[in-house]
Amino acid sequence: MKTLNKIQPRLTLVGAGPGDPDLISVKGVTALGKADVVLYDALVNTELLKYAPVHAPKIFVGKRKGKHEYSQEQINALIVDLAFTYGNVVRLKGGDPFVFGRGSEEIGYADAFNIESEIVPGISSSIGVPGLQGIPVTHRGDSESFWVITGTTSSGKISGDVKRAARTDATVVILMGVSRLREIAEIFKAENKHDVPVAIIQNGSLHNENLALGTVETIVDIAREERIGSPAVIVIGKVVRHHKQLSSFAFERSFTLN
Amino acid sequence: MKTLNKIQPRLTLVGAGPGDPDLISVKGVTALGKADVVLYDALVNTELLKYAPVHAPKIFVGKRKGKHEYSQEQINALIVDLAFTYGNVVRLKGGDPFVFGRGSEEIGYADAFNIESEIVPGISSSIGVPGLQGIPVTHRGDSESFWVITGTTSSGKISGDVKRAARTDATVVILMGVSRLREIAEIFKAENKHDVPVAIIQNGSLHNENLALGTVETIVDIAREERIGSPAVIVIGKVVRHHKQLSSFAFERSFTLN
Repeated sequence: MKTLNKIQPRLTLVGAGPGDPDLISVKGVTALGKADVVLYDALVNTELLKYAPVHAPKIFVGKRKGKHEYSQEQINALIVDLAFTYGNVVRLKGGDPFVFGRGSEEIGYADAFNIESEIVPGISSSIGVPGLQGIPVTHRGDSESFWVITGTTSSGKISGDVKRAARTDATVVILMGVSRLREIAEIFKAENKHDVPVAIIQNGSLHNENLALGTVETIVDIAREERIGSPAVIVIGKVVRHHKQLSSFAFERSFTLN
Repeated sequence: MKTLNKIQPRLTLVGAGPGDPDLISVKGVTALGKADVVLYDALVNTELLKYAPVHAPKIFVGKRKGKHEYSQEQINALIVDLAFTYGNVVRLKGGDPFVFGRGSEEIGYADAFNIESEIVPGISSSIGVPGLQGIPVTHRGDSESFWVITGTTSSGKISGDVKRAARTDATVVILMGVSRLREIAEIFKAENKHDVPVAIIQNGSLHNENLALGTVETIVDIAREERIGSPAVIVIGKVVRHHKQLSSFAFERSFTLN
């Protein structure tokens, strides 16, 4: 049994990857094995909890039925409380902890209590989920960059960066944007991007993965037909042509002739 | 022993992550275990080759002393030859195979020979390397997006996207850009971004990691003093303030007062 004076408060942020439990890193598995307590989000595959010691409490702090169980402030406070009570808090987050994950806020809060932290990066859904569908975020001749944007900002409005991105040739990846899909499509249409291919991938890397493929012009209708919901990754750009369903000659022609 | 008619040509693209061998995914380790032959790049940690069967040839196809051993066309042809000779070719690439890795060109070439391919995404250096230094690519109030750009395009010129990115509030991450650092800094100065913090991380996640921290104004001199070379990740944006060396009050003040 641990005695109180031996407790070393610590925070380890671990990226769980996009959903498939085998997409966590080897380092992430090792970090989970050293957890005294685990705090995990809704987008984390609960199969990963098997890597944590049996005795370590596993606490769900994500959204359920669209509602947050804990506010960010409560999660921050919980991390600090648990670190002083249990020791090493492993904070398991979907994708990479620093991609729209508020991970650095948690580290900043813990730091104010002199709690040391460590980061174990994860495979971000923004790159890995399109990749698993055969869509490269970059491809010579198609794009020299990719721009990852949140569809839902802290103000509740769509990020102005979506409009700025629509004016460029960057591959545009939008996370948490499915509920704003119509608005996003309108922004790209306003820049005469009607024929640019678009992919939306829901539950990427999981068995219930769901896909919509179209163009800026058609994607709203196609996403409705395919019953696309959250969480999903939206990819807008020429690179979408490399999707395995589109890369046959016939499909490629239909896109390039449009 | 395998007989020729049992060979199933196959290509598996595996992302090795930024350098630390423990940053490969569990799925990547499993994929390496099923390799009949491995082709690996210069940025891949050779410790990872231990996961491949002893009998599987491991072929280096990267750059040595700045020179390519094989052209991309030769690598494409080699993949196809080896797939028909050995079976499952595991193509191990640094970071994620679809981030400036020409991975989708290799898949396209193999596809023309009816060779099936599979992707195992990796942790991209663009996100993971800053993350390991405590720099989040996104942070509420600092950025609603991050834009990843190659410093070296196929034409040899700097990407025009660098200039477009300098006009936005996106976190800008530039890969393969150290040799163009002066040019990059000038582009940001032309947009009055002199005081925006910049980090350059060479050999991120490895024991010989090397760091330069400064602003658009100072980074060229600091990178020279710190003898920063390739490969390195350049991060430009307010988020750099969260770096562990800068997050103490004194440093934070010196940045916000500038």
